Amino acid sequence: MQICQIAGYKNSGKTTLMNQLIQYFSETGVRVGSLKHHGHGGEPDLGKQTDSRQHLDSGAVISGVQGETISQFMLHQQLDLDELVQLYNSFPIDLLLIEGFKKSAYPKIVLVRNREDLALINELPDVLAVGSRNAALLEELNVPVFNLNRIPENIPRLAEYIRGCSNE
Amino acid sequence: MQICQIAGYKNSGKTTLMNQLIQYFSETGVRVGSLKHHGHGGEPDLGKQTDSRQHLDSGAVISGVQGETISQFMLHQQLDLDELVQLYNSFPIDLLLIEGFKKSAYPKIVLVRNREDLALINELPDVLAVGSRNAALLEELNVPVFNLNRIPENIPRLAEYIRGCSNE
Repeated sequence: MQICQIAGYKNSGKTTLMNQLIQYFSETGVRVGSLKHHGHGGEPDLGKQTDSRQHLDSGAVISGVQGETISQFMLHQQLDLDELVQLYNSFPIDLLLIEGFKKSAYPKIVLVRNREDLALINELPDVLAVGSRNAALLEELNVPVFNLNRIPENIPRLAEYIRGCSNE
Repeated sequence: MQICQIAGYKNSGKTTLMNQLIQYFSETGVRVGSLKHHGHGGEPDLGKQTDSRQHLDSGAVISGVQGETISQFMLHQQLDLDELVQLYNSFPIDLLLIEGFKKSAYPKIVLVRNREDLALINELPDVLAVGSRNAALLEELNVPVFNLNRIPENIPRLAEYIRGCSNE
């Protein structure tokens, strides 16, 4: 299983890029898993009071519901990214795309909004490429760059670039 | 990891019993996982349009979100009960309580509503005990029985009975 992170500050375009990549990879036969860090806002919104949510509230460590081809699990346990990656490893996926967890040491695409964000490129480990909606900013860089204003037409090139940087 | 199913037809009291058992076990130091079969109503309700729901819609095989001590995963894959059990085995739980999947061969508590439901006791594999809100019905049976009208006071006895039937 190959791993690639999409990292960057809030409003740098991570959510849109994740969905475009997941869609492109899935359509071209690459089986994708995705993992998103909920960020600094606390716990994820688990939605309305389903039975499995109630099980978690009653004290279950893990609760799940399965119906036809969809299963949903909620886990009340501290897990670091390596443990989460290990969990994804037990599923038949070719590529795990991770949104956030930017300080982690997996290969990553860094999204920058402005000149101040450029510091991330040197601060973060294993930067494969840089994306931005600010085309002028990208011109100054000597790493592979992707103009986020030209998504989706840039998606195939970025996707192939990610797959070429294989760390499987 | 010990496994116990709570089986029975609709409106036999499964949901209430599951929550009472999860709560009792959790409070007494038994680490519980729960799994519910969504039944014949199709796919589980995944709630509102979160990012991880969007990832699944974009084609991801598995999508997840993690924040603080809570993680949530959605899986778009056909899994049978044995594969689901194997997944739970990778988490630190002592007991997996399964609601539904009544024809499966794990040890189970069968809940009966009326005389017609009694056929389940012979039809289903590995019945440990029978519960009902119909006390008169239980008097005729020669298996361990639990009066669901006397939940929660009956919960400790049922819980200890389940733990005593260990299949770990």
